[in-house]
Amino acid sequence: MYKILGVDPGSSCTGYGLISGDGQKVLYVTSGAIKLPARATRFEKLREIHQRIAAIIATHAPTHFAIENVFYSKNPRSTLVLGEARGAAILAAVLAGVPVFEYSAREVKQSVTGNGAAHKSQVSFMMGKILGVAPPESEDESDAIAIAMCHAFKNVEMKSL
Amino acid sequence: MYKILGVDPGSSCTGYGLISGDGQKVLYVTSGAIKLPARATRFEKLREIHQRIAAIIATHAPTHFAIENVFYSKNPRSTLVLGEARGAAILAAVLAGVPVFEYSAREVKQSVTGNGAAHKSQVSFMMGKILGVAPPESEDESDAIAIAMCHAFKNVEMKSL
Repeated sequence: MYKILGVDPGSSCTGYGLISGDGQKVLYVTSGAIKLPARATRFEKLREIHQRIAAIIATHAPTHFAIENVFYSKNPRSTLVLGEARGAAILAAVLAGVPVFEYSAREVKQSVTGNGAAHKSQVSFMMGKILGVAPPESEDESDAIAIAMCHAFKNVEMKSL
Repeated sequence: MYKILGVDPGSSCTGYGLISGDGQKVLYVTSGAIKLPARATRFEKLREIHQRIAAIIATHAPTHFAIENVFYSKNPRSTLVLGEARGAAILAAVLAGVPVFEYSAREVKQSVTGNGAAHKSQVSFMMGKILGVAPPESEDESDAIAIAMCHAFKNVEMKSL
Protein backbone atom coordinates (compact mmCIF):
# COMPACT_ATOMS: atom_id res chain seq x y z
CA MET A 1 0.00 0.00 0.00
CA TYR A 2 1.43 3.34 -1.06
CA LYS A 3 0.19 6.93 -0.92
CA ILE A 4 1.54 9.51 -3.37
CA LEU A 5 1.23 13.25 -2.84
CA GLY A 6 1.62 15.18 -6.09
CA VAL A 7 2.26 18.92 -5.77
CA ASP A 8 2.23 21.68 -8.39
CA PRO A 9 3.73 24.73 -6.63
CA GLY A 10 3.10 28.29 -7.70
CA SER A 11 3.25 31.66 -6.01
CA SER A 12 -0.43 32.49 -6.64
CA CYS A 13 -1.87 28.98 -6.33
CA THR A 14 -0.36 25.64 -5.30
CA GLY A 15 -2.22 22.48 -6.30
CA TYR A 16 -2.01 19.13 -4.54
CA GLY A 17 -3.43 15.68 -5.22
CA LEU A 18 -3.21 12.53 -3.13
CA ILE A 19 -3.74 9.05 -4.52
CA SER A 20 -3.23 5.62 -3.01
CA GLY A 21 -2.81 2.15 -4.42
CA ASP A 22 -1.69 -1.38 -3.81
CA GLY A 23 0.13 -2.07 -7.09
CA GLN A 24 -3.10 -3.28 -8.77
CA LYS A 25 -5.39 -0.29 -8.61
CA VAL A 26 -4.97 3.46 -8.14
CA LEU A 27 -7.47 5.27 -5.89
CA TYR A 28 -8.25 8.95 -5.53
CA VAL A 29 -7.93 10.15 -1.89
CA THR A 30 -8.12 13.95 -1.90
CA SER A 31 -6.95 17.03 -3.77
CA GLY A 32 -7.18 20.78 -3.61
CA ALA A 33 -5.82 24.16 -4.59
CA ILE A 34 -4.09 26.32 -2.01
CA LYS A 35 -4.92 29.86 -3.13
CA LEU A 36 -2.41 32.35 -1.83
CA PRO A 37 -3.70 35.75 -0.70
CA ALA A 38 -2.80 38.31 -3.40
CA ARG A 39 -1.90 40.87 -0.73
CA ALA A 40 0.51 38.58 1.11
CA THR A 41 4.22 39.24 0.68
CA ARG A 42 6.35 36.70 -1.20
CA PHE A 43 7.71 35.60 2.18
CA GLU A 44 4.28 35.13 3.77
CA LYS A 45 3.29 33.05 0.74
CA LEU A 46 6.30 30.77 1.28
CA ARG A 47 5.19 30.15 4.86
CA GLU A 48 1.62 29.43 3.72
CA ILE A 49 2.74 26.93 1.04
CA HIS A 50 5.11 25.21 3.46
CA GLN A 51 2.69 24.99 6.38
CA ARG A 52 -0.28 23.84 4.27
CA ILE A 53 1.76 21.10 2.55
CA ALA A 54 3.29 20.08 5.91
CA ALA A 55 -0.25 19.80 7.38
CA ILE A 56 -1.40 17.59 4.47
CA ILE A 57 1.65 15.37 4.98
CA ALA A 58 1.00 15.17 8.75
CA THR A 59 -2.67 14.24 8.16
CA HIS A 60 -2.30 11.74 5.32
CA ALA A 61 1.25 10.39 5.77
CA PRO A 62 2.10 9.95 2.07
CA THR A 63 4.86 7.44 1.30
CA HIS A 64 6.04 9.38 -1.81
CA PHE A 65 6.11 13.02 -2.88
CA ALA A 66 6.07 13.85 -6.63
CA ILE A 67 6.64 17.21 -8.30
CA GLU A 68 6.98 18.45 -11.85
CA ASN A 69 10.45 19.14 -13.08
CA VAL A 70 10.04 22.69 -14.47
CA PHE A 71 13.22 24.50 -15.36
CA TYR A 72 12.08 27.73 -16.88
CA SER A 73 9.36 30.31 -16.87
CA LYS A 74 8.41 33.45 -18.77
CA ASN A 75 11.24 35.48 -17.28
CA PRO A 76 14.14 35.03 -14.82
CA ARG A 77 12.27 36.81 -12.02
CA SER A 78 9.29 34.41 -12.35
CA THR A 79 11.67 31.46 -12.45
CA LEU A 80 13.34 32.57 -9.21
CA VAL A 81 9.99 33.13 -7.46
CA LEU A 82 8.78 29.73 -8.70
CA GLY A 83 11.99 28.20 -7.34
CA GLU A 84 11.33 29.73 -3.92
CA ALA A 85 7.78 28.30 -3.89
CA ARG A 86 9.13 24.89 -4.94
CA GLY A 87 11.77 25.06 -2.18
CA ALA A 88 9.06 25.76 0.44
CA ALA A 89 6.90 22.84 -0.78
CA ILE A 90 9.75 20.33 -1.23
CA LEU A 91 11.11 21.19 2.22
CA ALA A 92 7.82 20.08 3.81
CA ALA A 93 8.39 16.60 2.32
CA VAL A 94 12.12 16.48 3.06
CA LEU A 95 11.69 17.54 6.70
CA ALA A 96 9.01 14.84 7.15
CA GLY A 97 11.30 12.20 5.63
CA VAL A 98 9.10 11.64 2.55
CA PRO A 99 11.19 10.83 -0.55
CA VAL A 100 10.85 13.34 -3.42
CA PHE A 101 10.56 12.41 -7.12
CA GLU A 102 10.55 14.67 -10.18
CA TYR A 103 8.99 14.17 -13.59
CA SER A 104 8.91 16.36 -16.67
CA ALA A 105 5.57 17.53 -18.12
CA ARG A 106 6.21 15.18 -21.04
CA GLU A 107 6.69 12.17 -18.74
CA VAL A 108 3.46 13.03 -16.90
CA LYS A 109 1.45 13.23 -20.14
CA GLN A 110 3.06 10.08 -21.53
CA SER A 111 2.36 7.98 -18.45
CA VAL A 112 -1.25 9.16 -17.99
CA THR A 113 -2.40 9.24 -21.65
CA GLY A 114 0.22 7.29 -23.58
CA ASN A 115 1.12 10.45 -25.49
CA GLY A 116 3.89 12.77 -24.27
CA ALA A 117 2.44 15.64 -26.32
CA ALA A 118 -1.16 15.15 -25.17
CA HIS A 119 -3.42 18.17 -24.67
CA LYS A 120 -4.37 19.05 -21.09
CA SER A 121 -8.00 18.07 -21.81
CA GLN A 122 -6.83 14.56 -22.68
CA VAL A 123 -4.99 14.30 -19.36
CA SER A 124 -8.20 15.40 -17.56
CA PHE A 125 -10.25 12.86 -19.54
CA MET A 126 -7.95 9.97 -18.59
CA MET A 127 -7.90 11.13 -14.98
CA GLY A 128 -11.69 10.79 -14.91
CA LYS A 129 -11.55 7.34 -16.54
CA ILE A 130 -8.81 5.96 -14.28
CA LEU A 131 -9.72 7.54 -10.92
CA GLY A 132 -13.47 7.84 -11.51
CA VAL A 133 -13.56 11.48 -10.40
CA ALA A 134 -14.59 14.57 -12.32
CA PRO A 135 -11.49 16.61 -13.26
CA PRO A 136 -11.11 19.51 -10.81
CA GLU A 137 -11.76 23.05 -11.99
CA SER A 138 -8.35 24.24 -10.87
CA GLU A 139 -5.60 23.48 -13.38
CA ASP A 140 -2.98 23.42 -10.61
CA GLU A 141 -5.00 20.79 -8.73
CA SER A 142 -5.49 18.74 -11.89
CA ASP A 143 -1.77 18.93 -12.70
CA ALA A 144 -0.90 17.82 -9.15
CA ILE A 145 -3.11 14.72 -9.42
CA ALA A 146 -1.57 13.91 -12.82
CA ILE A 147 1.95 14.12 -11.34
CA ALA A 148 0.97 11.70 -8.55
CA MET A 149 -0.54 9.31 -11.15
CA CYS A 150 2.63 9.51 -13.22
CA HIS A 151 4.72 8.42 -10.24
CA ALA A 152 2.34 5.52 -9.54
CA PHE A 153 2.30 4.29 -13.13
CA LYS A 154 6.03 4.58 -13.72
CA ASN A 155 6.84 2.74 -10.50
CA VAL A 156 4.11 0.12 -10.59
CA GLU A 157 5.51 -0.84 -13.99
CA MET A 158 8.92 -1.10 -12.38
CA LYS A 159 7.38 -2.97 -9.41
CA SER A 160 9.37 -0.78 -7.08
CA LEU A 161 6.47 0.54 -5.03
CA MET B 1 19.94 46.86 20.23
CA TYR B 2 19.43 44.95 16.98
CA LYS B 3 20.98 41.82 15.47
CA ILE B 4 20.99 41.36 11.71
CA LEU B 5 21.55 38.01 10.02
CA GLY B 6 22.68 38.40 6.42
CA VAL B 7 22.45 35.30 4.23
CA ASP B 8 23.81 34.60 0.74
CA PRO B 9 22.17 31.33 -0.34
CA GLY B 10 23.60 29.02 -2.95
CA SER B 11 23.27 25.34 -3.76
CA SER B 12 26.98 24.58 -3.32
CA CYS B 13 27.74 27.03 -0.50
CA THR B 14 25.54 29.30 1.62
CA GLY B 15 27.22 32.19 3.46
CA TYR B 16 25.94 33.87 6.61
CA GLY B 17 27.04 36.84 8.66
CA LEU B 18 25.65 38.18 11.92
CA ILE B 19 26.23 41.73 13.14
CA SER B 20 24.74 43.67 16.03
CA GLY B 21 24.45 47.33 16.89
CA ASP B 22 22.73 49.96 18.95
CA GLY B 23 22.22 52.66 16.31
CA GLN B 24 25.68 54.16 17.02
CA LYS B 25 28.08 51.37 16.23
CA VAL B 26 28.00 48.15 14.23
CA LEU B 27 29.68 45.09 15.74
CA TYR B 28 30.72 41.80 14.18
CA VAL B 29 29.20 38.78 15.96
CA THR B 30 29.86 35.71 13.83
CA SER B 31 29.89 34.47 10.24
CA GLY B 32 30.51 31.32 8.26
CA ALA B 33 30.09 29.36 5.07
CA ILE B 34 27.78 26.34 5.01
CA LYS B 35 29.42 24.07 2.45
CA LEU B 36 26.96 21.63 0.99
CA PRO B 37 28.15 18.07 0.30
CA ALA B 38 28.68 17.70 -3.46
CA ARG B 39 27.18 14.20 -3.40
CA ALA B 40 23.98 15.27 -1.64
CA THR B 41 20.81 15.46 -3.74
CA ARG B 42 19.24 18.87 -4.40
CA PHE B 43 16.57 17.96 -1.85
CA GLU B 44 19.06 16.99 0.86
CA LYS B 45 20.84 20.30 0.27
CA LEU B 46 17.58 22.20 0.85
CA ARG B 47 17.17 20.46 4.22
CA GLU B 48 20.79 21.23 5.14
CA ILE B 49 20.45 24.95 4.26
CA HIS B 50 17.15 25.24 6.10
CA GLN B 51 18.22 23.41 9.25
CA ARG B 52 21.61 25.18 9.52
CA ILE B 53 20.05 28.64 9.13
CA ALA B 54 17.24 27.69 11.56
CA ALA B 55 19.88 26.61 14.11
CA ILE B 56 21.76 29.93 13.74
CA ILE B 57 18.48 31.82 14.26
CA ALA B 58 17.64 29.69 17.34
CA THR B 59 21.10 30.30 18.83
CA HIS B 60 21.51 34.02 18.11
CA ALA B 61 17.90 35.29 17.89
CA PRO B 62 18.46 37.92 15.15
CA THR B 63 15.91 40.75 15.01
CA HIS B 64 16.26 41.13 11.21
CA PHE B 65 17.06 38.86 8.27
CA ALA B 66 18.61 40.35 5.11
CA ILE B 67 19.15 38.71 1.74
CA GLU B 68 20.36 39.82 -1.67
CA ASN B 69 17.73 40.44 -4.26
CA VAL B 70 19.07 38.33 -7.17
CA PHE B 71 16.74 37.80 -10.07
CA TYR B 72 18.76 35.93 -12.62
CA SER B 73 21.58 33.53 -13.09
CA LYS B 74 23.57 32.00 -15.94
CA ASN B 75 20.68 29.86 -17.12
CA PRO B 76 17.03 29.16 -16.17
CA ARG B 77 17.91 25.86 -14.48
CA SER B 78 20.47 27.60 -12.21
CA THR B 79 17.94 30.33 -11.46
CA LEU B 80 15.33 27.76 -10.41
CA VAL B 81 17.81 25.85 -8.22
CA LEU B 82 18.95 29.16 -6.65
CA GLY B 83 15.30 30.02 -5.99
CA GLU B 84 14.81 26.70 -4.18
CA ALA B 85 17.86 27.38 -1.98
CA ARG B 86 16.58 30.90 -1.25
CA GLY B 87 13.16 29.50 -0.36
CA ALA B 88 14.74 27.07 2.13
CA ALA B 89 16.80 29.85 3.78
CA ILE B 90 14.02 32.48 3.84
CA LEU B 91 11.61 29.95 5.31
CA ALA B 92 13.88 29.50 8.34
CA ALA B 93 13.46 33.23 9.07
CA VAL B 94 9.74 33.38 8.28
CA LEU B 95 8.90 30.35 10.45
CA ALA B 96 10.85 31.91 13.36
CA GLY B 97 8.99 35.22 12.93
CA VAL B 98 12.09 37.18 11.86
CA PRO B 99 11.24 39.90 9.30
CA VAL B 100 12.96 39.52 5.91
CA PHE B 101 14.50 42.39 3.91
CA GLU B 102 15.95 42.33 0.39
CA TYR B 103 18.63 44.54 -1.20
CA SER B 104 20.13 44.56 -4.66
CA ALA B 105 23.89 44.02 -5.11
CA ARG B 106 24.11 47.70 -6.09
CA GLU B 107 22.42 48.84 -2.86
CA VAL B 108 24.78 46.67 -0.83
CA LYS B 109 27.89 48.13 -2.50
CA GLN B 110 26.55 51.68 -2.28
CA SER B 111 25.76 51.49 1.42
CA VAL B 112 29.02 49.79 2.44
CA THR B 113 31.48 51.70 0.20
CA GLY B 114 29.57 54.76 -1.04
CA ASN B 115 29.87 53.42 -4.61
CA GLY B 116 27.17 51.22 -6.14
CA ALA B 117 29.62 49.91 -8.74
CA ALA B 118 32.45 49.17 -6.26
CA HIS B 119 34.69 46.15 -6.79
CA LYS B 120 34.32 43.24 -4.37
CA SER B 121 37.80 43.98 -2.95
CA GLN B 122 36.60 47.46 -1.96
CA VAL B 123 33.63 45.98 -0.12
CA SER B 124 36.03 43.63 1.74
CA PHE B 125 38.34 46.55 2.57
CA MET B 126 35.52 48.63 4.06
CA MET B 127 34.25 45.60 5.96
CA GLY B 128 37.66 45.34 7.63
CA LYS B 129 37.71 49.08 8.43
CA ILE B 130 34.17 49.21 9.83
CA LEU B 131 33.92 45.88 11.66
CA GLY B 132 37.63 45.50 12.48
CA VAL B 133 37.75 41.93 11.19
CA ALA B 134 39.82 40.42 8.40
CA PRO B 135 37.58 39.73 5.38
CA PRO B 136 36.68 36.03 5.28
CA GLU B 137 38.19 33.80 2.61
CA SER B 138 34.78 32.63 1.44
CA GLU B 139 33.11 35.05 -0.95
CA ASP B 140 29.65 33.83 0.09
CA GLU B 141 30.46 34.57 3.74
CA SER B 142 31.84 38.00 2.86
CA ASP B 143 28.74 38.80 0.75
CA ALA B 144 26.46 37.74 3.62
CA ILE B 145 28.21 40.11 6.08
CA ALA B 146 27.97 42.95 3.53
CA ILE B 147 24.21 42.36 3.13
CA ALA B 148 23.74 42.56 6.91
CA MET B 149 25.82 45.80 7.02
CA CYS B 150 23.71 47.25 4.21
CA HIS B 151 20.53 46.65 6.19
CA ALA B 152 22.08 48.26 9.29
CA PHE B 153 23.32 51.35 7.42
CA LYS B 154 20.15 51.94 5.45
CA ASN B 155 17.96 51.64 8.52
CA VAL B 156 20.16 53.46 11.02
CA GLU B 157 20.09 56.38 8.59
CA MET B 158 16.31 56.13 8.61
CA LYS B 159 16.40 55.70 12.41
CA SER B 160 13.94 52.85 12.05
CA LEU B 161 15.96 50.22 13.90
